[in-house]
Amino acid sequence: MNPVCLVIGAGAGIGGTVGARFAREGYHACLCRRSDEEGLNRLVEGIRSDGGSATGFLLNAVEPGAIEERVAAVEADIGPIEVAIYNLGAQIGDRALQDTSLKAFETGWRLGTFGLFRLASVLFPLMVERGKGTLLVTSSTAAMRGNGGQHSHAAAMGGRRMLCQSLNAEFASKGIHVVHIVIDGAVDAPDTLGKMLGAEKFQQLRETRGNEHDGLMLPAQIAETYVHLARQHRSTWTHEIDLRAFSDRPWWNH
Amino acid sequence: MNPVCLVIGAGAGIGGTVGARFAREGYHACLCRRSDEEGLNRLVEGIRSDGGSATGFLLNAVEPGAIEERVAAVEADIGPIEVAIYNLGAQIGDRALQDTSLKAFETGWRLGTFGLFRLASVLFPLMVERGKGTLLVTSSTAAMRGNGGQHSHAAAMGGRRMLCQSLNAEFASKGIHVVHIVIDGAVDAPDTLGKMLGAEKFQQLRETRGNEHDGLMLPAQIAETYVHLARQHRSTWTHEIDLRAFSDRPWWNH
Amino acid sequence: MNPVCLVIGAGAGIGGTVGARFAREGYHACLCRRSDEEGLNRLVEGIRSDGGSATGFLLNAVEPGAIEERVAAVEADIGPIEVAIYNLGAQIGDRALQDTSLKAFETGWRLGTFGLFRLASVLFPLMVERGKGTLLVTSSTAAMRGNGGQHSHAAAMGGRRMLCQSLNAEFASKGIHVVHIVIDGAVDAPDTLGKMLGAEKFQQLRETRGNEHDGLMLPAQIAETYVHLARQHRSTWTHEIDLRAFSDRPWWNH
Amino acid sequence: MNPVCLVIGAGAGIGGTVGARFAREGYHACLCRRSDEEGLNRLVEGIRSDGGSATGFLLNAVEPGAIEERVAAVEADIGPIEVAIYNLGAQIGDRALQDTSLKAFETGWRLGTFGLFRLASVLFPLMVERGKGTLLVTSSTAAMRGNGGQHSHAAAMGGRRMLCQSLNAEFASKGIHVVHIVIDGAVDAPDTLGKMLGAEKFQQLRETRGNEHDGLMLPAQIAETYVHLARQHRSTWTHEIDLRAFSDRPWWNH
Repeated sequence: MNPVCLVIGAGAGIGGTVGARFAREGYHACLCRRSDEEGLNRLVEGIRSDGGSATGFLLNAVEPGAIEERVAAVEADIGPIEVAIYNLGAQIGDRALQDTSLKAFETGWRLGTFGLFRLASVLFPLMVERGKGTLLVTSSTAAMRGNGGQHSHAAAMGGRRMLCQSLNAEFASKGIHVVHIVIDGAVDAPDTLGKMLGAEKFQQLRETRGNEHDGLMLPAQIAETYVHLARQHRSTWTHEIDLRAFSDRPWWNH
Repeated sequence: MNPVCLVIGAGAGIGGTVGARFAREGYHACLCRRSDEEGLNRLVEGIRSDGGSATGFLLNAVEPGAIEERVAAVEADIGPIEVAIYNLGAQIGDRALQDTSLKAFETGWRLGTFGLFRLASVLFPLMVERGKGTLLVTSSTAAMRGNGGQHSHAAAMGGRRMLCQSLNAEFASKGIHVVHIVIDGAVDAPDTLGKMLGAEKFQQLRETRGNEHDGLMLPAQIAETYVHLARQHRSTWTHEIDLRAFSDRPWWNH
Repeated sequence: MNPVCLVIGAGAGIGGTVGARFAREGYHACLCRRSDEEGLNRLVEGIRSDGGSATGFLLNAVEPGAIEERVAAVEADIGPIEVAIYNLGAQIGDRALQDTSLKAFETGWRLGTFGLFRLASVLFPLMVERGKGTLLVTSSTAAMRGNGGQHSHAAAMGGRRMLCQSLNAEFASKGIHVVHIVIDGAVDAPDTLGKMLGAEKFQQLRETRGNEHDGLMLPAQIAETYVHLARQHRSTWTHEIDLRAFSDRPWWNH
Repeated sequence: MNPVCLVIGAGAGIGGTVGARFAREGYHACLCRRSDEEGLNRLVEGIRSDGGSATGFLLNAVEPGAIEERVAAVEADIGPIEVAIYNLGAQIGDRALQDTSLKAFETGWRLGTFGLFRLASVLFPLMVERGKGTLLVTSSTAAMRGNGGQHSHAAAMGGRRMLCQSLNAEFASKGIHVVHIVIDGAVDAPDTLGKMLGAEKFQQLRETRGNEHDGLMLPAQIAETYVHLARQHRSTWTHEIDLRAFSDRPWWNH
């Protein structure tokens, strides 16, 4: 039986690509996303046609009980989750304070912070029993510093980062590896950046940001680092790492 | 008419003491706390008998609309809020992940992050019109790093810190001074630390932590720094400052 | 006898202004600077004509023994140093790596890091005996993050910041208050910024950066915060604080 | 011709092990260390008997010109340096301020900060011409926070970190990958930790810190992460990463 890699937030960018990469490592990839069943099926089919093993699930992470039930069902029906990827974003684009509704702010928190807490709450007791497990948390610039228009996003991601540190403090010595991965740049992801910018601007960005599109962060390359982190020996664990394109400036320089 | 200083979270520790200190500066102190009407009245009476001006309000900050209505009523009935102190804590003591309920985690966020967002959302448009205003945010060690048992608290405070930075990014140039004040140590506060420890342990701590109790942070001394921050000229604003007792180690050393 | 406030790096900007401000608090200001005896005398005369007490010294801080001898002589001839201000900058303007000589890099360290170590090495044993003392260290954006062209400056200031934390770790509990003050913006200082920009550009900057020149940080206002920090009660000490003009963005936003 | 991996500071711990690991990747490892020619030869022999390619050099990094000449000679005689590892430590154990001589402080800087600057000054122009290159900088807890007894070490490492950020700001877009690697724990290294503790205590530590000695960081495992970093695609570069054993607490929690 393959070990399971659970991806919460498996779009066509980081989530789906990382899931496929873990499938190539021999994991059964459980891909969860809120909508676009067709896109989800394409991801699963892609993995299978590469000889990998995967299942897709539609999952509305803000719905009470949804994450909890998905974890329980995967553990019961497919197998023990060895690696979990929490990849839900909460970026809603730059919005002035006045344009940030209470509801938008709360949704940011539900996706950005609370969902991660709920995942850890159900998954970590199982991992503790097994004496091991890995939780890779995709995070962002906004976890490191607030900025104009980022009220909802930065608050959610700042909470995410401090939660990762708290989880690490309690669970590292029990064999659970928690990593806070700071994606500090634009990702070549049609489902998120592409939709935010619109097709035309996104294509333009792809063409102008360096040779071979590599001014944008390539999900397939990001996935290499995720796999490396999951493979780290427990004598040598990373808790925080940043990633950005060579042509970009890090958050502390812009 | 006196300028108004609004304190959200005015217990017998930092909040009430800071409010009284601003009253001595000539502000009308509007003190808000969730419960203990008697204690609230004592604070108001104390200010008045010192020749200051103050009003007390019971306020349940997690209740929808409560902060918003309080701000509107104070502006209408008492006067423009020049200084606001957001002093609600969200510390619930060290709790393992398994002992941290979804509800506790959510309440931490409602007090720690969301209430501050709600306050800014209603107050900042008024301050922008007036071209000035000050928001002093009491924060804590948990805003800087997560730790064992701090899942709820650290997530709430990490969100608070990033929100303060986002508010500053949008509003500093409009004349609104936002300060994130890291209270990095135990405060000599009977209403919070005292209740958490119990009367006996609290007294013992007071006696053992240095001469004149000054191993604990004295609220009256903290208030001096709050007043200084509110007085800073706009050519020279502080956004982040830490405070701790001389006999304590800073968060990065323990 | 007045307590002594020793300023290392007393030009017409922060250093001299802070010295004069402490003289108004009743300190005897000992102002040290490398050159411009005339400017130094003007500062001392200014303090005296305000009714304060001051002495000026020419001091080449990179010269072996110079800081050490100055401290010894002031303690012997004038009185115990209660407050020391380390205000030597090491900014040499933006220089590409190729244009940064070994000598420039070393001088940056001698001014930025080593001089502070030397000052603490001779002064702190005296302060420990007296059970109290304050060291206010002017620092800069470059202590928080490196940047293009800042090889020498950032290395020197990064060392300065870590040294301040190490000094605090050993000496806070012995009554010595060390503060790392992050001056995160351009200061209205003719001797440093003025010389770097040239008279014309400096005047232009003064005129365009906001009403009353307050887009630039005003040394007189900075001095208010220095005095506040020196006055903090030992139950409530600040170790790190940032300062910038309201119209500027903090380092983490640009 | 093999690409060259130059290691400055190639003892039996991280440096030598990382060098050997890069040799297994097909690099010619140039191992430099100050003393112990026998130990150096053992490392080189070990690499060769594994089928790798390596040369050893004795190098006193604080000697003027030594790093510069070594780089020039390697480039001339062996080949272009694609990966450089700066692995010189500056830890001298905990020393109170009074026990930290001017000379010790200066040596800390020469090893910790200045040597890295000198290496980059001669190597980066060559890498810029080639449009690529990697500099992996071993760093430590002391780069992130000062601590008692760490005056020399923390100042040196704080300078190192800010220098890495400055180098990155100028050179990332030119294809040079600079990584600041925070080794945040005790390494299973007989040449450094072993000597500092003495043979007996070191053995005791090895036996008590977890099963398979993995409470100590294993150099062979650290080397895996170094290789991963050097392999990262330029669309997805890490600038800062931390590493510690699962059983250890990160620096922000102790």
